[in-house]
Amino acid sequence: MRWSKALIPTHKEDPSDAETTSHKLMLRAGLMRKLTAGVYNYLPLGWKAIRNVERIVREEMDAAGAQEIHMPVIAPCELWRECGRWDVYGKELMRLEDRHGRMFVLGPTHEEVVTDIVRNEISSYKRLPFTLYQIQTKFRDEPRPRFGVVRAREFIMKDAYSFNADEESLDETYDAMYHAYERIFDRCALEYRPVEAATGAIGGSVSHEFMVLSDTGESEVIVCACGYAATDERAEGVVDPEGGGGEPAPMERVDTPEMKTIEEVSEFLGVEPSRLVKTIVYEADGRPVAALVRGDREINEAKLQTALGASILTAAPPETIERVTGAPVGFAGPVGLEGVTVVADETVRPLVNAVVGGNSKDLHLRNVNPGRDFEVSAYHDIVLVRKGDRCARCGKRLDSFRGIEVGQVFKLGTKYSAPMSAVFLDENGDSHPFEMGCYGLGVSRTVAAIIEQHNDANGIVWPVSVAPYAVELLAVNVSSETTREAADEIYQDLLESGVDVLYDDRNESPGVKFKDADLIGLPLRITVGDRGLGRGVVEAKVRRTGEETDLPRESAVQRIVEMLATLA
Amino acid sequence: MRWSKALIPTHKEDPSDAETTSHKLMLRAGLMRKLTAGVYNYLPLGWKAIRNVERIVREEMDAAGAQEIHMPVIAPCELWRECGRWDVYGKELMRLEDRHGRMFVLGPTHEEVVTDIVRNEISSYKRLPFTLYQIQTKFRDEPRPRFGVVRAREFIMKDAYSFNADEESLDETYDAMYHAYERIFDRCALEYRPVEAATGAIGGSVSHEFMVLSDTGESEVIVCACGYAATDERAEGVVDPEGGGGEPAPMERVDTPEMKTIEEVSEFLGVEPSRLVKTIVYEADGRPVAALVRGDREINEAKLQTALGASILTAAPPETIERVTGAPVGFAGPVGLEGVTVVADETVRPLVNAVVGGNSKDLHLRNVNPGRDFEVSAYHDIVLVRKGDRCARCGKRLDSFRGIEVGQVFKLGTKYSAPMSAVFLDENGDSHPFEMGCYGLGVSRTVAAIIEQHNDANGIVWPVSVAPYAVELLAVNVSSETTREAADEIYQDLLESGVDVLYDDRNESPGVKFKDADLIGLPLRITVGDRGLGRGVVEAKVRRTGEETDLPRESAVQRIVEMLATLA
Repeated sequence: MRWSKALIPTHKEDPSDAETTSHKLMLRAGLMRKLTAGVYNYLPLGWKAIRNVERIVREEMDAAGAQEIHMPVIAPCELWRECGRWDVYGKELMRLEDRHGRMFVLGPTHEEVVTDIVRNEISSYKRLPFTLYQIQTKFRDEPRPRFGVVRAREFIMKDAYSFNADEESLDETYDAMYHAYERIFDRCALEYRPVEAATGAIGGSVSHEFMVLSDTGESEVIVCACGYAATDERAEGVVDPEGGGGEPAPMERVDTPEMKTIEEVSEFLGVEPSRLVKTIVYEADGRPVAALVRGDREINEAKLQTALGASILTAAPPETIERVTGAPVGFAGPVGLEGVTVVADETVRPLVNAVVGGNSKDLHLRNVNPGRDFEVSAYHDIVLVRKGDRCARCGKRLDSFRGIEVGQVFKLGTKYSAPMSAVFLDENGDSHPFEMGCYGLGVSRTVAAIIEQHNDANGIVWPVSVAPYAVELLAVNVSSETTREAADEIYQDLLESGVDVLYDDRNESPGVKFKDADLIGLPLRITVGDRGLGRGVVEAKVRRTGEETDLPRESAVQRIVEMLATLA
Repeated sequence: MRWSKALIPTHKEDPSDAETTSHKLMLRAGLMRKLTAGVYNYLPLGWKAIRNVERIVREEMDAAGAQEIHMPVIAPCELWRECGRWDVYGKELMRLEDRHGRMFVLGPTHEEVVTDIVRNEISSYKRLPFTLYQIQTKFRDEPRPRFGVVRAREFIMKDAYSFNADEESLDETYDAMYHAYERIFDRCALEYRPVEAATGAIGGSVSHEFMVLSDTGESEVIVCACGYAATDERAEGVVDPEGGGGEPAPMERVDTPEMKTIEEVSEFLGVEPSRLVKTIVYEADGRPVAALVRGDREINEAKLQTALGASILTAAPPETIERVTGAPVGFAGPVGLEGVTVVADETVRPLVNAVVGGNSKDLHLRNVNPGRDFEVSAYHDIVLVRKGDRCARCGKRLDSFRGIEVGQVFKLGTKYSAPMSAVFLDENGDSHPFEMGCYGLGVSRTVAAIIEQHNDANGIVWPVSVAPYAVELLAVNVSSETTREAADEIYQDLLESGVDVLYDDRNESPGVKFKDADLIGLPLRITVGDRGLGRGVVEAKVRRTGEETDLPRESAVQRIVEMLATLA
């Protein structure tokens, strides 16, 4: 491709609205442009990178025996009601009404649709196991889209679904997919780690996320020297108990004018946050629930939802909080709370002389003792584990890192097949719901993750496997006939040799062209200029190492082909 | 791929709800399944065919110098308001409201989005011309989806957009795209014809549709021996004048109880339909318009819209018709009609003693003479031309054929660039809107058109270029160890030779397997059975010709590779 005719709009400056390195570079190097919040146009360089990742994904999925299909973007709401996700998915689900008033979803995933296909077509154990996959545009109405394509509202995903006769077979497919993911991310030159994960809105029993290590990642991963690794949402750990408090003292009311936060109350009363109790009101399937956690900790809503056995868990709106507590938001507490289920984290149980909200404006209570001053329906582990807690397996202190989730695999079991009556007959003619697995991989997000890990101060440093072009051919000064003729000829020869080459034939200053070459970061840069040609050479520079080599003009194309083989 | 593990659900019987050959075969051969009206799942065989067409399209687009990009499915309504299409597109445009109440379209085409990209990035004539394309899922809320993927609500299209400095450059790109389309459809083995076309909701001055000849096609194409060819919507022709009627007689009222249709009135009064006048009420940009055409003809709404210079032309609802005519629907006529623009087709002008509606229930008027009994604002050519009319160019009688539109190319001019202020600076620093072209190609529809032209009584007859697999390897009886071992070995050898092969290793009767082989229609069938192996051969059969050849077992793979080369 000749750059002079290509749509590769580069920018010198970082865009003001981009926070992460990959987001900045994807805009600056002209890979994409924002159409609207969380929705991007892929320009030629970005789209070529996406297609390269897609190719790797297809090759590894096919090698693992999965079959490619293509399911529609839109699906009728009736299908989404069969498993209840029409209600559970909430506002993240984009919905559409057609000309006849029928409702559709814009698919964020396709469990219902693929299960519908299979229940209509497959009825015998002899046809099992098999795995279907697609690479398709997906939709999720993120409340706060950010980080470019990392948290977008429209994005490209590979999603695969396996249908198995029993759990043992599901385990085998799950492992095969897990290993296929390892090969995919290895080929994408990513430094990543598979970690245990929560199952969230997809559901199922076992799940792993593939985390690309990145300081700007949105996900917090908890790790232990013993090998344990899980997302913070999923992680189990042991929180050090709060040992202070002394002997139980009589409960007291304290005025805390305008003090709503843990920090304000803690400072005002001179009590450590770990001896305060946070009372947070939720709605679990529509019913109010008060959840208690130590003031220095956060609630893990996934654990809380599981503990409550709720399909839908949302933060209660202010009017509910006011109705339940009889006080404005900020003063909720467990003492005297009626008509609402109260659950507490295990770390609350041993507290002595704690401080809690007083269910009245500007009022807190101190010297509050669980069991004596308030009752709890049940204690659960509902705390968000963090670095410094102890590993639930080996007792060592946990560490953490940040990451970008590029894939997630799930053992769904019969979560979809049972309610949708997707069944097969076994050897004896008995009917069973399919055991299912699902396997998602963010294609557009993987490109961002690659850039997040492969860049330097000057721009992107593409791995050869996914680089939009293998080679940038740079003509230093196109107004020199010598240079232009030599570069044109090398360009033609490279094309004929099957080398994927971008030819910077623009009438721009050498400074602009060298800067742009570093910015878009193709693996090998070949510079053609009068000075080199005078010495009978062109100059090769490896983007990643900076290593420069003079190539004899006559054998340049052959040498370029050889160099590419060593870089790949 | 082993059929025993593949999702290729074939059916013996034609599905009851499919009307055309391609629709029936795409369902019977397991290429796709309906999810909901006009929305289909592509199963593995269908998706492979789609991907093959996509590959051909990409190769020819790239060869023509177009650059691939990827624009989102959803686009904000603000962009669609800039050229007015938010209103013009009506109910065919699928619309979506996000969680913040902002409105989006699900793109049926991407003129606004691509123009927005280019106006933000390109400002100099030096960068022109260039062409961007994408292969993307598109949406159109068809009132009556039918014929499978031919008239679907969600479908796959290639859409390209060219940006040129002037009309001459646009002409060059238009020709290049036109020729690329010819190569694409040639490679897809289609018998097709490019014809002049109306520009409809896309707009612009010049357009051609690529019509695949098919009796079940939805489009009517008007052709002349002189070479003229155009869609009926676009075609120009000369309608034979109505010569009857005699001398003008005094106008009379006639009771026509319950007679609303041309046929009823014509028969009741004993007057040829060609001497009746149809009066049809429209709304042009919201204002009522009465359009008159001879009773034996239809109105060409595209011509009427152009004649009126209207952005939006729709059939008037009953309440408007009743208000305008003072009568129930079915009795509209031009005599005494007030407060409404009356336009008439040229064929109405010479009528003598015509019959018209009486603007009163159960009343018609006869011996009505244009000019004497009613006034017309303007006469235009607004009639739908048909077979038997005369060619406007050479005067010969026109013929017609039916076809499936698989592609359409447009010279848009500045229809989008001017209102969207998408401009570039010329050599002198003067600003001009881009001259634009757009070039659509229905990818999923092309697959249906291929099947419509390539089938026989037993099933699909795939052209090699787009066949899901090149070869079907059929093991006659897998319970025979001899057969199974030989077939397994040939399968492995074919895979290693790079042959795209589907291996029917199912434990089904030979009858079922041979029938299925014909149904899915792969170009070359290789049959492995005990009988042949006893003679040291396997049997090759060419699906298209039925030609059968014995291949020596030992050299079978080599011979298959050779045969494929001759078939391609």
